[in-house]
Amino acid sequence: MEKNGLQIRSLVTDDGELQLSLQRVPVGEPAEDEVVVRIDAAPINPSDIGLLFGAADMAAARYSGTPESPVVTAPIAPALRRAMKARQGQSLPVGNEGAGLVIEAGAKAQHLLGKTVAIFGGAMYAQYRTVRAGDCLELPPGTTAAEGASCFVNPLTALGMTQTMRREGHTALVHTAAASNLGQMLNKICRADGIALVNIVRKAEQVEILRGIGARYVCNSADPSFMDDLIAALSDTGATIAFDAIGGGKLASQILTAMEAAANARATEYSRYGSSVHKQVYIYGSLDTAPTELTRSYGTAWAVGGWLLTPFLQKIGAAEVQKLRERVAREIKTTFASHYAHEVSLAGALTPEAIGAYNKRATSEKFLIRPNAEA
Amino acid sequence: MEKNGLQIRSLVTDDGELQLSLQRVPVGEPAEDEVVVRIDAAPINPSDIGLLFGAADMAAARYSGTPESPVVTAPIAPALRRAMKARQGQSLPVGNEGAGLVIEAGAKAQHLLGKTVAIFGGAMYAQYRTVRAGDCLELPPGTTAAEGASCFVNPLTALGMTQTMRREGHTALVHTAAASNLGQMLNKICRADGIALVNIVRKAEQVEILRGIGARYVCNSADPSFMDDLIAALSDTGATIAFDAIGGGKLASQILTAMEAAANARATEYSRYGSSVHKQVYIYGSLDTAPTELTRSYGTAWAVGGWLLTPFLQKIGAAEVQKLRERVAREIKTTFASHYAHEVSLAGALTPEAIGAYNKRATSEKFLIRPNAEA
Repeated sequence: MEKNGLQIRSLVTDDGELQLSLQRVPVGEPAEDEVVVRIDAAPINPSDIGLLFGAADMAAARYSGTPESPVVTAPIAPALRRAMKARQGQSLPVGNEGAGLVIEAGAKAQHLLGKTVAIFGGAMYAQYRTVRAGDCLELPPGTTAAEGASCFVNPLTALGMTQTMRREGHTALVHTAAASNLGQMLNKICRADGIALVNIVRKAEQVEILRGIGARYVCNSADPSFMDDLIAALSDTGATIAFDAIGGGKLASQILTAMEAAANARATEYSRYGSSVHKQVYIYGSLDTAPTELTRSYGTAWAVGGWLLTPFLQKIGAAEVQKLRERVAREIKTTFASHYAHEVSLAGALTPEAIGAYNKRATSEKFLIRPNAEA
Repeated sequence: MEKNGLQIRSLVTDDGELQLSLQRVPVGEPAEDEVVVRIDAAPINPSDIGLLFGAADMAAARYSGTPESPVVTAPIAPALRRAMKARQGQSLPVGNEGAGLVIEAGAKAQHLLGKTVAIFGGAMYAQYRTVRAGDCLELPPGTTAAEGASCFVNPLTALGMTQTMRREGHTALVHTAAASNLGQMLNKICRADGIALVNIVRKAEQVEILRGIGARYVCNSADPSFMDDLIAALSDTGATIAFDAIGGGKLASQILTAMEAAANARATEYSRYGSSVHKQVYIYGSLDTAPTELTRSYGTAWAVGGWLLTPFLQKIGAAEVQKLRERVAREIKTTFASHYAHEVSLAGALTPEAIGAYNKRATSEKFLIRPNAEA
């Protein structure tokens, strides 16, 4: 009999509502270069939440179905439906990354049988996935699926930041929402690689978290002295590139203003068009969905743009990506270790309690899905 | 006796006020590779107005001195003084470009004696300038100083836009405030070079101006159908780069939104992170000084940044710049012809009437200074 397994699906209905449910789908037979992986652990990252909930208002969600087969329905405001039109009627699988045990393997992939592997490639909120052997990252012996579940999104994003910094000619960097799992990872990478990192957070307890792992520059945007602190840190480090997870509001513009002030403090004469030092902010997240407000009070040598992992990996090419993947595997229990506040089953990820918690996208509410755990 | 001449100066005083005046300055003897030019015409460009007035409130200006030696004093709001601090106490000459007659020449620059030349290099609101021969662009015989006065800022900026478009892999472009002198020039360049250009204006009469010179795509941001018109023009042309002279408000974001809609209309399947087509807006002016508001509703493949002529010229290198300069000289009476609404002397540029008019930065109020005309 054909093997099958459960999978989380996200659908925008023709009525303009979002519907989340579990679907039972067949598990494909592996081709000669493919394997079947029993997914044992998959993290819920902010980028997954974007696909899972789309533009729906989850505070107004209705919960139906059964505990084993829950259905979540949530309205999408009419003004936001245009942006959702392209996915209307498509039942989308979710989950960027995960890890598990290779339980079947094609003729040319037998070396992976019985190994614990990590995978990047979508649809990981599922009990089984048939994937190409080349897409599996074999974890070092003794590594659990939970330890290896977050091998890609956060580690490669953090490494992508330092690589982008180098490729674009900068020597130090700024990171916002810096106490996140990703932010803590970035601190470890920067320490190991000798890169000066300016951390920006929004709360005093986040300052403590970062001090606790040895961060040297931590600026709290809630402090009255924030701009002065930031200018001092930028003057000290010479950081002229920032990666911003917040997106909305004035923070990106404040960073550019502070970079300009730091550059002008080093300049010896008045430049009417501002400093000639190029100042870059990449927005890679949208914790604040409000518009980004740029005062443009930092001359003309500045840029703000979107940054996404996948195009970055395409740009650097397969050989460079492989080097990054190998570093992640080697350091998965140290530099790239992730921490989860909660573990849930597939059905457990669709309860009001779970959604209410992980939709906050807070570091302290990070979830790990265990697709083969009991509901 | 040493030769001297008048020059417009802009000073931010220690009291935090702006002061404009005429100063009499000595004319340097030309070195062997230098010439002395009698400046006969110099345009007032928006970029000159920025240096001339800084952050001062010109509506509150006081006028004193004499008709031959006027003094203009204007307050700078305390909140804006920090940005002006770097130029405090420095009496700055003004005027990016101009043209005039070579009246003296060093031993190695004799070929320019008696020629009418255009110059780019600051301090052109002056009766005489001693400059390097290599910085002079010899105008074709029969070209007046008034015809050649605007050889650099607008022509090289317009050419810089089409060059940037090509260098960054785009095939068509968008321009805002498109009925300006610069905008009309850009229409002529694009027609000659076979580049599709989407013009954005804010008034019906500006649509007429552009239609009158044969522009095909003109979108009026005051029309209720603006976004639909813009999406249609972008779909038609495939333009994915824009040069924006407005800066403040929502226009840059609207352009990116429309570019994304045009890209998605061509896409065949839903992309959760938006289209992979890179969408670029360069802000090169600040007709609206309010913050730029970016909704970020256009995926992750987008960027907004400052653009300035001088770094662009440095980037393309001297040989490329020389080709652009030669094209401008050849076509100065056609493609690169400029039009002025008013001509004034140096003193005449500092009257309340003149300042009130050119500070509007309106195409219909373009001024040409005649430094050697009678006051």
